[in-house]
Amino acid sequence: MALLVQKYGGTSVGSFERIEAVADKIARAVRRGDRLVVVLSAMAGETNRLLGLAKQVSAEPASRELDMLLATGEQISISLMAMALHKRGIAAQAMLGDQAGVVTDGRHSRARIQTVEAERLIDLLAQGIVPVVAGFQGRCDAGALTTLGRGGSDTTAVALAAALQADECQIYTDVDGVYTTDPRVEPRARKMDSITFEEMLELSSLGAKVLQIRSVEYAGRYNVPLRVLSSFQDGSGTLITYEDPAMDAPLVSGVAFRRDEASLTLVGVPDEANVAAQILTPISDAGIDVDMIVHTTTGAGKADFTFTVSRQDLAQASALLAPVVKTLGVNSLRTNEDLCKVSVVGVGMKNHTGVASRMFQTLGQEGISVQLISTSEIKISVALDEKYLELAVRSLHNAFDLAKGE
Amino acid sequence: MALLVQKYGGTSVGSFERIEAVADKIARAVRRGDRLVVVLSAMAGETNRLLGLAKQVSAEPASRELDMLLATGEQISISLMAMALHKRGIAAQAMLGDQAGVVTDGRHSRARIQTVEAERLIDLLAQGIVPVVAGFQGRCDAGALTTLGRGGSDTTAVALAAALQADECQIYTDVDGVYTTDPRVEPRARKMDSITFEEMLELSSLGAKVLQIRSVEYAGRYNVPLRVLSSFQDGSGTLITYEDPAMDAPLVSGVAFRRDEASLTLVGVPDEANVAAQILTPISDAGIDVDMIVHTTTGAGKADFTFTVSRQDLAQASALLAPVVKTLGVNSLRTNEDLCKVSVVGVGMKNHTGVASRMFQTLGQEGISVQLISTSEIKISVALDEKYLELAVRSLHNAFDLAKGE
Repeated sequence: MALLVQKYGGTSVGSFERIEAVADKIARAVRRGDRLVVVLSAMAGETNRLLGLAKQVSAEPASRELDMLLATGEQISISLMAMALHKRGIAAQAMLGDQAGVVTDGRHSRARIQTVEAERLIDLLAQGIVPVVAGFQGRCDAGALTTLGRGGSDTTAVALAAALQADECQIYTDVDGVYTTDPRVEPRARKMDSITFEEMLELSSLGAKVLQIRSVEYAGRYNVPLRVLSSFQDGSGTLITYEDPAMDAPLVSGVAFRRDEASLTLVGVPDEANVAAQILTPISDAGIDVDMIVHTTTGAGKADFTFTVSRQDLAQASALLAPVVKTLGVNSLRTNEDLCKVSVVGVGMKNHTGVASRMFQTLGQEGISVQLISTSEIKISVALDEKYLELAVRSLHNAFDLAKGE
Repeated sequence: MALLVQKYGGTSVGSFERIEAVADKIARAVRRGDRLVVVLSAMAGETNRLLGLAKQVSAEPASRELDMLLATGEQISISLMAMALHKRGIAAQAMLGDQAGVVTDGRHSRARIQTVEAERLIDLLAQGIVPVVAGFQGRCDAGALTTLGRGGSDTTAVALAAALQADECQIYTDVDGVYTTDPRVEPRARKMDSITFEEMLELSSLGAKVLQIRSVEYAGRYNVPLRVLSSFQDGSGTLITYEDPAMDAPLVSGVAFRRDEASLTLVGVPDEANVAAQILTPISDAGIDVDMIVHTTTGAGKADFTFTVSRQDLAQASALLAPVVKTLGVNSLRTNEDLCKVSVVGVGMKNHTGVASRMFQTLGQEGISVQLISTSEIKISVALDEKYLELAVRSLHNAFDLAKGE
């Protein structure tokens, strides 16, 4: 008799067959006695189709109208899912974001949920009706339709779970949980039964794209038990926990990576306080995400300044730096466009030294040279020549004994 | 400086090229100084596509969820049109039915507009913004999304025009006005500059599908000046007037017709008061529309009873009558599946005799025998063998001098 919020992503409702399969899954849970709120994304491909329509009409569509256009994607999938549930004799009601009480701020295309007025959901649940809610959307106080940005359906699910004090928020996706690393790179990768909130944040920001990062933060803030599981097969998935890690938490929980990185190095910048801002402001003003940043003093009031961006942003970033190079009297601007990033993540490393040394030892034994290093409390990231990516992931996965159970 | 509500139908926004062309038209009107509210249908074909999706999931989709699904069609066209207007430097805002203040009753898929809360529209107009409103949809008091049924966008436009006391409600479609008859049948058919409200009701119910009939009733009730015109070419279209017809109104304004009719005749039914109900109740219970009804006493307490239905409903209607035939002791059930209906319509005939005789004379001269006759104050309809349809329409159009101007 649990109260569950279940969110199904785009691939989980990407075809009529998938919609029927998910409806079967929901019907089984309802017949078991669980009370369910279902949150859906748009059918896979639909959001891109709609963006394509907008691009046909306008190179720069207004975000207010773009939100209204994109919101139809979820509206279609909830309508169809409610019909599929009715066919199975399950009382269900399709609900738009605002009908489910999702109130956001007015920032179109990247709105944030301000509050959930859950009375209507509570009322439907009391009547034994399954609310089937459009994820990714809400309305702001001014009455305009808003969207939460890509992946926002996860956030909708977490927000509803928080408002309803649900027993669990279950994110159904096309993978059966969170793995110690990508099984396509290391076949011995192991699904984790649980992972801490902090580790999940590091893993998802590092490219293990299982959950939208904002939804994980939201779940952490409101202490919502969050579980990632597969809509294609049975299984208990991975639970994201918020407890303090046990004393015997593993040093390292997983190995994450990201391809298609590039670096820019300004050789011989003045070693002054405001140099970093001068270099990075034009980059971030252009909407380019900067990831790793390294600043090395080379003596004589000079320093080298290196940062990484996505490979696709390299050309634009180089162009943006041209005037800065001139202003700062930099010796040269060097770029490297064949990088990847590999990270080891684990709450256990907070209280232990030795993770970094074991990491560099392992990579060194394989003849892999490290270009850049960046660390946080629970992760160590290195930038490497991309050709070494698979070798680095597999050797680190093995060095930290991730293939065996906890 | 007129305040105009302009409605564009599905073919008028059926492609990107059409959307751009309509946006040009709107931009010109705005630059001329008119204040505009634009109402749109779904892009041509979209509603059928959505219905197809629903049918894939459920043979009998719930009307509440079907409304939510179908409403996405208009949501897409208004979003794209607002973007196209922005591109032209026109301030515009896409608005869903409920955002524009359209409140309906709760009858899903055939809701009726109860009121229009026009404050928001008035506010936008005062700011010089063009509201681009989704036709066909609203919300009921309970907060559910509703649709007005096929063609409901016309009704939305008229309701907004009434609420705003607009100078004119302009219905843009793929024809340039209302014709004396179908130009594909009679090339000399003439576009009328104006037509009375009553004539329009008869013409549209008889198959000249220019305007949704409910919108015409609505416009008549609220005295909204209604104009039908083409979105594909310039021109003043046809104005629907609500004044008393001038004394010299033409006897006949137009010739309407409908193909694919069929008749059923019960020969030798008891000539009693409740027989008609016994025959027609099972037909109407099955949702089959009955059109012309003729009852002829044949003497000796017996009568013949004939009525017409759409040809596609003939088989079902025959089957439904089988038990009635037995109960009433009918001699035989005769059907005719090759009929059409031709009608002459005109407010002028109210005060004049002779229209019927001229009609029958004309048809008789062409050797066309009339199967059934039905009359109202401003129209006379006859059922004919369908092979005579074009000949009948052309000869009547000529007999009543419709090709020449008024």
